[in-house]
Amino acid sequence: MSTIDSLPIRDELRGKSPYGAPQLDVPVRLNTNENPYPLPEELVARIGERVTEAARHLNRYPDRDAVELRTELARYLSRTAGHTVGAENVWAANGSNEVIQQLLQTFGGPGRTAIGFEPSYSMHGLISRGTGTGWISGPRNEDFTIDVEAAVRAIAEHRPDVVFVCSPNNPTGTAVDEATVLALYEAAQAARPEHGALVVVDEAYGEFSHHPSLLPLIEGRPTLVLSRTMSKAFGAAGLRLGYLAADPAVVDAVQLVRLPYHLSAVTQATALAALEHTDTLLGYVEQLKSERDRLVTELRAIGCDVTASDANFVQFGRFADAHEAWAALLAHGVLVRDNGVPGWLRVSTGTPEENDAFLEAVRAVTKDLKEKSER
Amino acid sequence: MSTIDSLPIRDELRGKSPYGAPQLDVPVRLNTNENPYPLPEELVARIGERVTEAARHLNRYPDRDAVELRTELARYLSRTAGHTVGAENVWAANGSNEVIQQLLQTFGGPGRTAIGFEPSYSMHGLISRGTGTGWISGPRNEDFTIDVEAAVRAIAEHRPDVVFVCSPNNPTGTAVDEATVLALYEAAQAARPEHGALVVVDEAYGEFSHHPSLLPLIEGRPTLVLSRTMSKAFGAAGLRLGYLAADPAVVDAVQLVRLPYHLSAVTQATALAALEHTDTLLGYVEQLKSERDRLVTELRAIGCDVTASDANFVQFGRFADAHEAWAALLAHGVLVRDNGVPGWLRVSTGTPEENDAFLEAVRAVTKDLKEKSER
Repeated sequence: MSTIDSLPIRDELRGKSPYGAPQLDVPVRLNTNENPYPLPEELVARIGERVTEAARHLNRYPDRDAVELRTELARYLSRTAGHTVGAENVWAANGSNEVIQQLLQTFGGPGRTAIGFEPSYSMHGLISRGTGTGWISGPRNEDFTIDVEAAVRAIAEHRPDVVFVCSPNNPTGTAVDEATVLALYEAAQAARPEHGALVVVDEAYGEFSHHPSLLPLIEGRPTLVLSRTMSKAFGAAGLRLGYLAADPAVVDAVQLVRLPYHLSAVTQATALAALEHTDTLLGYVEQLKSERDRLVTELRAIGCDVTASDANFVQFGRFADAHEAWAALLAHGVLVRDNGVPGWLRVSTGTPEENDAFLEAVRAVTKDLKEKSER
Repeated sequence: MSTIDSLPIRDELRGKSPYGAPQLDVPVRLNTNENPYPLPEELVARIGERVTEAARHLNRYPDRDAVELRTELARYLSRTAGHTVGAENVWAANGSNEVIQQLLQTFGGPGRTAIGFEPSYSMHGLISRGTGTGWISGPRNEDFTIDVEAAVRAIAEHRPDVVFVCSPNNPTGTAVDEATVLALYEAAQAARPEHGALVVVDEAYGEFSHHPSLLPLIEGRPTLVLSRTMSKAFGAAGLRLGYLAADPAVVDAVQLVRLPYHLSAVTQATALAALEHTDTLLGYVEQLKSERDRLVTELRAIGCDVTASDANFVQFGRFADAHEAWAALLAHGVLVRDNGVPGWLRVSTGTPEENDAFLEAVRAVTKDLKEKSER
């Protein structure tokens, strides 16, 4: 019987575990920021239709450049994100993780570095390491906003090739304002005067924000890239469809590293069907934003600390032992996420009923923990 | 207007073009080794059903470990490839290209090297470079079989971390026998005594071979990996479903680098539907094998040199100028592939009608070229 360690794997992988939240079977699962609303039945039927049509040509390779899909994604962004873009500005892949991997293979890689401001989406660092890109952990303020001065200093000192800005930030929910992104962009260009550095604004949760998208910033900034996903706002985590918007030269550049025909015909067909139903799906987003705001209000009323949230999840605390609180909530049948931020947990916005069950569990757990600490 | 070269891309990407065959609109397209038979209508309907069902849960992430799909792939291999394997032996990804990329991220990467025996599937080298793995071009005999002595010497000299063996080999069609693979495996282990080296047998075209699969060789050889695809034998190039079979430790190891939830719920559902129709699809494979053998016979009758083929394509020549012959065939409405092997072209097996049109075009072009050379 062989083990991983007996194999000739890379040294830096030895002793590591695969990334991923525990998949536990509990009544209320609010741990992976999924959209709690199933797709409407008319969209389900439309997916069936479009995929059936695509299956008639499945013996042929898919459209390698996914032109129809990129055109519709561009139309969606143009209509909702405050800036007009075309298919030439958009690139799509199997989840925003693959978008980020392609960006790092193109602009990062061995001998190069990327920086993010942590705590943030941990895949930025993991995919950096997976592509041989050195990872630099940049600072944040106590309130989880980006400390602009410290961030600019870190960029000047480390001269990274890629800068990640997650807005709204996962797992804290914190939006990043335009002025901050511009300051980081200027710092990154100044640190790398020859060709500049790539700045990736990860707006996976952009549609849930109180603030407009940062998409307009790509204008005139050829190394500013916006990354998005259909997993959250489109309620399609199972689809694995991420995309980016940027200068057309960036779209051309990632094609140098993308695996040929990376995006299947069934993925393209399903995404196109979902884009036909944008208005319905954005209606669910409005409901979730309202429930998210309710979670913030009620958690504060319970006495929790809550980080202001622009995402479909809420960071709450503070617990003397966050993992103990996580386990206590699980014992009440509610699965939230322990992202390893000391004192804090993250809960995804569920349906009103799921949120009620979560709030009830927090009340009970908070009371228990308080009594325990007073004993 | 920015250009790729004004961006901070990696130096080794400067001046490069994206990989991919020209996508031209001509009557007879025999250039990408697609299966010419569309999926049967009952399978198309079943895909529609299974994807519709999957779409009802599309707001949730897919099964990260694709257990049902891996179980069915294992069942298929056990039934057809001469060796019993289970889900724990099988891993799946978006096309065998992604399987290979994950293997290289785990076992190759910066500071490591991979070897292939060229001409062979060019993506082995391209994905090696894309993952920062050094690429070593190993030798072949004049007749495109592997020169075992020279290959063993090359392995001993370069001590690669990964060895690619493509059987049947793309673009030549050449099968590699068991003794050769075993000799290369032994040489690779001897060159890397500590943990061994990974040997990847790429059987993308395995179902079309006159010879049995090399799958049984994985038994007792923890660093021997078999790679397969549903693109060819299953007539599902549009699906992008590749898989590997190996020791369970290899399956565990690639999970250290796979992007989480890399395989969408619609891909898993479609692949499962196709696996329900294995017998029908393997019936098409038998028709294609017979047509492939006819192409070999008739091309030889025309006076072409033909490399013995165990794949769903045939390498034929020899032309003083292969690209000139490629263009002449295109002028006759037939698109074949110029893989850059001097003197040779590659034609995919099409339907009987497509193959007739191709053979007619070869007759005309051969006559023209002969007359031209005698002028």
